[in-house]
Amino acid sequence: MCVLPSSAVHDTSLHGEPTGSAYEAYRDELIAAGLLIPLGVRGVYGRSGTFENVIDRFDALVTKHGRALNPVVMRFPPVFARSNYEKIDHINNFPDLMGSVHTFLGDDKQHRQMLGRFEAKEDWTQDLQPAAVMMTPAICYPLYPTVQGKQLPAGGRRVDLQGYAFRHEPSDDPARMQIFRMHEYVRLGTPDEALEHRAYWLDKGQEIFESVGLKTERVLANDPFFGRGGKVQKVMQREQNLKYEFVIPVGNPDKPTAIGSCNYHLDHFGTAFDIRTADGEVAHSACVGFGLERVALALFKTHGLDVADWPAEVRDVLALA
Amino acid sequence: MCVLPSSAVHDTSLHGEPTGSAYEAYRDELIAAGLLIPLGVRGVYGRSGTFENVIDRFDALVTKHGRALNPVVMRFPPVFARSNYEKIDHINNFPDLMGSVHTFLGDDKQHRQMLGRFEAKEDWTQDLQPAAVMMTPAICYPLYPTVQGKQLPAGGRRVDLQGYAFRHEPSDDPARMQIFRMHEYVRLGTPDEALEHRAYWLDKGQEIFESVGLKTERVLANDPFFGRGGKVQKVMQREQNLKYEFVIPVGNPDKPTAIGSCNYHLDHFGTAFDIRTADGEVAHSACVGFGLERVALALFKTHGLDVADWPAEVRDVLALA
Repeated sequence: MCVLPSSAVHDTSLHGEPTGSAYEAYRDELIAAGLLIPLGVRGVYGRSGTFENVIDRFDALVTKHGRALNPVVMRFPPVFARSNYEKIDHINNFPDLMGSVHTFLGDDKQHRQMLGRFEAKEDWTQDLQPAAVMMTPAICYPLYPTVQGKQLPAGGRRVDLQGYAFRHEPSDDPARMQIFRMHEYVRLGTPDEALEHRAYWLDKGQEIFESVGLKTERVLANDPFFGRGGKVQKVMQREQNLKYEFVIPVGNPDKPTAIGSCNYHLDHFGTAFDIRTADGEVAHSACVGFGLERVALALFKTHGLDVADWPAEVRDVLALA
Repeated sequence: MCVLPSSAVHDTSLHGEPTGSAYEAYRDELIAAGLLIPLGVRGVYGRSGTFENVIDRFDALVTKHGRALNPVVMRFPPVFARSNYEKIDHINNFPDLMGSVHTFLGDDKQHRQMLGRFEAKEDWTQDLQPAAVMMTPAICYPLYPTVQGKQLPAGGRRVDLQGYAFRHEPSDDPARMQIFRMHEYVRLGTPDEALEHRAYWLDKGQEIFESVGLKTERVLANDPFFGRGGKVQKVMQREQNLKYEFVIPVGNPDKPTAIGSCNYHLDHFGTAFDIRTADGEVAHSACVGFGLERVALALFKTHGLDVADWPAEVRDVLALA
């Protein structure tokens, strides 16, 4: 699965409350410096021009490295088809993270009834209907349906993606946002091609992070599967070595945060959307994801809140004028 | 109000069905050229790297012009606080356009019940609860709560915004997307300052569009207020000259589409969020919005689907390498 970055390491620490104040302290520093703008919901922030510029520059650096692979560039919006959401097991595995978009489809009379409840401060959302879209839970989910029922060319397909993902996970950790951007490279093809892609990015990702002064560690990880049944899936995901994360301390010096990850999906998406390799086999897939807000937060944590004071070589690599 | 771009002109045409096929024809051309990628929901598309690059280059052009005003740069995500949504009358005026985000807050047992309904192909969304966020209906809505209860400096405040807006408005017109980006400049201040901002951008916007070969017309317009009561509000908005749009034929040669607009909000947001001028009066506000996907669609319509064939001066102004 491609719900990134999850950081099981981080999950644990966040639920072991004593460290919570470290996250809040860093969040408050970022707000005081004007880099994040509180919007009244935990894990939902506005960003300053400076914060956004760091994201743009790092994103451009990733693009520069990724271009060598000659990927197809595609961009998807923050919502995707509910009918495709229903094919990818997210409702089984991560129901607590979902964002289902609802709207009002009634007439004038029903509108007056809803406004009556709204004005009485009752739950007015019971009058809404599910729209045809869901929030995108991971940047690569909308990709697979676009090749549904198709056969890939020999060598498979490489795709460059960037966009917003939503995860309903309110937190005081500034690195655990409910809505955030990822830059991803996905490979669809044979098992060997998928694994080669992941191996390439495990090294390339480390190299990119090092080039901007981020000393990340690569660790085996798992996604935050829901509930009691999810425990087994977490163990299986680890035993099969499906997910690796690039971790570095961000909100808490003692507990590293995932700022990127490399995932092998086996034939999960190939089967769900009937995608075939050139040889007619079910396609496998793998992806690397760079968590753009988390990378920016790691850069501010590592090099300081004033971009002008960052090391000259980091400013140079990021082309921060 | 700032629900942009609305194009009442366009509304009318869209509902007068005989012209529908022109929209579908242009949509199908864009898809065949690989510029838009269908995602299984009307008005929700993926974009190619080429399409996205045109958006980026036009966005950079707008930024270059806007920089002269020395605005504060802020960026907001595609969702914002439900508590703030409830203060801006959107539920009264545009309920049919809203996107309310819902999620699953239950335990293992409730999860099994929801999955039972899901597997039986019943409505499983009745098990969801409203999250603390709504889809952002207009790029500038999240801005006003950030200055709630505050007094502006003398001269007011200018803000540069860019981000996604959601409007539940399924359509075959490629220019009427359910989720799209706007680049906005907002001015908060006295009535004179707000009106000066709008007058400035009515000229500057036209100049920017002309510089890329788009011959837009400025027309008085209104937002698509809901229902029978909304008819009065449409007339009032027009009589008070609150909304102007930059229109140009895009999906249909006979019916122009708004690709930008200039709006005077009176004290709507100042009152809703208790924002005061330096003199202690309720702040007024105005904004200009450039509809980035619509501008790209207008450029492709005007100059052709192959960017390499666009006029040299347009490519030059957009810095299309």
